[in-house]
Amino acid sequence: MAKALPVSPLAPKGGFPALPAIGGVRFSTVAAGVRYAGRTDVMLAELQPGTTIAGTFTRSKTRSAPVLDCEVKLGREAQAGAAILVNSGNSNAFTGTRGVEAVRAVAAQVATTLGIPEARVFTSSTGVIGEPLPHERITAVIETLHDTLSGDGIADAARAIMTTDTYPKGSVRTAEIGGRTVTVAGIAKGSGMIAPDMGTMLVYVFTDARIGFDALQPLVKGACDSTFNCITVDSDTSTSDTLLVAATGASGIDVTDNPAFSTALTAVMDDLAKQVVRDGEGATKFVTVNVTGAASDADARLVAMSIANSPLVKTAIAGEDPNWGRIVMAVGKSGAEADRDRLTIRFGEVLVAQNGMVAPGYVEADAAAHMKGEEVMISVDLGLGSGALTVFTCDLTAQYIAINADYRS
Amino acid sequence: MAKALPVSPLAPKGGFPALPAIGGVRFSTVAAGVRYAGRTDVMLAELQPGTTIAGTFTRSKTRSAPVLDCEVKLGREAQAGAAILVNSGNSNAFTGTRGVEAVRAVAAQVATTLGIPEARVFTSSTGVIGEPLPHERITAVIETLHDTLSGDGIADAARAIMTTDTYPKGSVRTAEIGGRTVTVAGIAKGSGMIAPDMGTMLVYVFTDARIGFDALQPLVKGACDSTFNCITVDSDTSTSDTLLVAATGASGIDVTDNPAFSTALTAVMDDLAKQVVRDGEGATKFVTVNVTGAASDADARLVAMSIANSPLVKTAIAGEDPNWGRIVMAVGKSGAEADRDRLTIRFGEVLVAQNGMVAPGYVEADAAAHMKGEEVMISVDLGLGSGALTVFTCDLTAQYIAINADYRS
Repeated sequence: MAKALPVSPLAPKGGFPALPAIGGVRFSTVAAGVRYAGRTDVMLAELQPGTTIAGTFTRSKTRSAPVLDCEVKLGREAQAGAAILVNSGNSNAFTGTRGVEAVRAVAAQVATTLGIPEARVFTSSTGVIGEPLPHERITAVIETLHDTLSGDGIADAARAIMTTDTYPKGSVRTAEIGGRTVTVAGIAKGSGMIAPDMGTMLVYVFTDARIGFDALQPLVKGACDSTFNCITVDSDTSTSDTLLVAATGASGIDVTDNPAFSTALTAVMDDLAKQVVRDGEGATKFVTVNVTGAASDADARLVAMSIANSPLVKTAIAGEDPNWGRIVMAVGKSGAEADRDRLTIRFGEVLVAQNGMVAPGYVEADAAAHMKGEEVMISVDLGLGSGALTVFTCDLTAQYIAINADYRS
Repeated sequence: MAKALPVSPLAPKGGFPALPAIGGVRFSTVAAGVRYAGRTDVMLAELQPGTTIAGTFTRSKTRSAPVLDCEVKLGREAQAGAAILVNSGNSNAFTGTRGVEAVRAVAAQVATTLGIPEARVFTSSTGVIGEPLPHERITAVIETLHDTLSGDGIADAARAIMTTDTYPKGSVRTAEIGGRTVTVAGIAKGSGMIAPDMGTMLVYVFTDARIGFDALQPLVKGACDSTFNCITVDSDTSTSDTLLVAATGASGIDVTDNPAFSTALTAVMDDLAKQVVRDGEGATKFVTVNVTGAASDADARLVAMSIANSPLVKTAIAGEDPNWGRIVMAVGKSGAEADRDRLTIRFGEVLVAQNGMVAPGYVEADAAAHMKGEEVMISVDLGLGSGALTVFTCDLTAQYIAINADYRS
C-alpha cells in the first residue's frame, strides 16, 4: 500500500469488538518486513491437539499456492495439534514452483518449531500477485512467533493480516448449550478484489466448541453461501480467498447438529462479511440489494449481483441519485428471466416503479431523501416466482479509482 | 447531461470525417427540447422506396419500446419508402404502455408527413431511462424536419443523437465492384452503458448499394459479432442498443454475396465501434485485449471480457501500472477453462509472464514504458487450444465516476 488510507466512514461505530480468549487457541504477530515497513505482517495461531479445521476457498482457476495447499490438508490428521500462519503484503499467487516451495518452507518451519505434523499447518498469503514470496523473511521469525504466543492476541492478529483494509475486522457470538456457553470469534481482512466465489477473503473463525470435520465442513459451506458468497465490492474475485474455521473442543461441549451453535457461527460470518463490505475501497454507502419474486434462487443471484456489480448503479448511489433506470438496466442485462411489465422497484420504503413504469404518485424527493443516508436499500421484485436473495455491496467512488490506480506502483 | 464534458483525449485526431452524400438518403435535424436546451436532439433520415433495412438490437430483458417496435418491423414492406427518426435526451425505456403509445404517435406522424407506411418508420430514443417521453415535442417538429431534408445532413445527424458523447462519430468506406463504386457511411453514438449484447448503442449505416433483406441481415449480424460485440466500456448493457443498416440501392449496383461490400461494411462498423470506445466515459487509454490459445472461442470471449471489464485491471491501466497480477486474477475468475501453469501474458511486445510465473528476464520498466502510451495492448495466451478473440475497451478513471455520479441529478 503506497500510503495510509483514512478509515472508512462505514466502519463499525464501536471500533474493534472486545474478543475474548478462545480456549485452545493462542496467537502471536510480528513485523517480518515481507513488504510493508513499520507494521506487523505475519500472524500465527496455534491450535490444541484435536482441533477440527474446516474451510472453503476461492474457485478461481488461478488460485494461489497457499490455497491449493490448504485444500488438500483439510480433514487430515485431525487429532494432532495444528497451526494457521498468515502473511500480508504478498499473496504468493502466480509464483509457479517457487510459490509451492515457499509454502513448503514456511509450513515445515512452523511444524518443526511447534512439534506438529506439516499436514496440520495451514498458511495464507495476501497482497500483491505474481511476485515471489520472500519466505526466508517469514521462516526467520517463526521462533519469535512461537515464543510470544498468547491467548489474548486475536486483535493483534486481525491487524497483522490487513492490506488495503482501513480497519481490523472482528466478531464474536456465544451459544448457550445445556446451560453452558460456547464462544465463536472470528477475524477477517478484505477491502478490494471482493466478489467471493465459494470462499471469501481471508477469514479465520475460532471456537472452543467440539465438533468433528464431517459435521463442521457442511455447516461452514452452508453459512458461507448465505454470508460471504452474498457480498461484492468490485466484482473482482481474488486468487486467495480463504475461510478457515477451527473448533478446538476446549469447552468440552459437543455442538454436532446443534442449531444454537450453527446460528452463532453464521452470525459471526455474517458480521465479518458485512464488515468487509463496510471497508470496501472508497466506500461511502452500505448497500443492501433485496431480490424477490425471481423464477429461481439462481436467477435471484444473477439479478442481485448484476445490480450490485453495475458501475452505473454504484456511481449513481455515490451521487445520491435515485436513478432507478439503471436498476432496470441491470435487471435487463443479468441473463435472468425477467418481464419488464412485472417489475417492482423500491428505494428504502419508497415504491419507485411497478408494472413496467414509474409508480403512480412517485415523488423523486422521497427516494432522494433515502439515498442521502449511509445505508441504502434497493428492493426488486420480479413478480415471477419465489426465488430470492439478499446481497450486500457498497458504492463506487473516485476514491476507489485513486486507491487502485496507485496501489502497488 | 449536467454540464459540457471536455472532448475525449482519445478522439480521432482528424475530427469528424468528411462523409459524402449517399444516394437515396436525406437527413434533417432540429432542436425539439426533449430534454436538452440549446442543441439539436432529433434527427430524421428519409430513405428512398426499395431501401433494404437490416439491423440488430440489444438482448436486454428490459429493452425499450422503440427497440421492441423496430424488431417487428425489420424485413416488412421492403418496396416502400422508409424513415429513421432518433431522439436524444430520453430513451423511452421502462415507460410501460405510455412508451408504446409514444412510439406509435411519433411513427404515425412521420408516416403521414412523408407518405410512407408506418411499418417502415424506425424510431430510436436514447437518454434517461424511466421517464415518459414527451413525444408531443417530437411530433410538433416533424413537419419542420420534412421541410429541411438534405442529402448533406449526415454530420448534423451524428451530433443530434449524442448524449454523454464528447464528439460525434462517423465513418465511410467505398468498395469497387465491377469498375463502379458503392459507398458505405455510418454514424454512431455511445460513451457509457456500453457492453453491447448482439447489438450496440445507436448506430446507423447507409449505403447506396443494392441488396435484399435476406442477404443483408446475416451480413450485418456477422459483422456485428466481430465489431460492436467486441467492445465494452463499463460492462453495463443498454436497454436501447440499436444498429440499423439501410441499403438504398441508388447506385444500381447489386452487392449480394460481394466480399468487397462486406469488407467495406465491416470496416465502417469496426471504425465506429472503436470510436465509441475512444469516447468511453472518462477514458484516457485505448485498450486492446488479445486472447489466444483458449479451449474455445466462447472461452476466449469469457477471458477477454473478464479482463476488459475488471475494475481492478482498468484502474491499473489508468494508473499506468503494469499490474499483471490483476490479469491473472481476471483470467482466474472468468469461468473459462484455464491452467495457471500454461498462461502467457504480454503488455505490448513485452513478455511478462509464462508457465505460471513471471518471465525470466522480465524488467518492469519495459512494461511500464508501454503503459505510458495512449494505446495499451494486453495479450493473453492460455496455451490450451485455438480459441481466440480480440476486444477493445478503455481505462476506468475518476472522471467516469464524476460523470455518472452527476448525470441525471
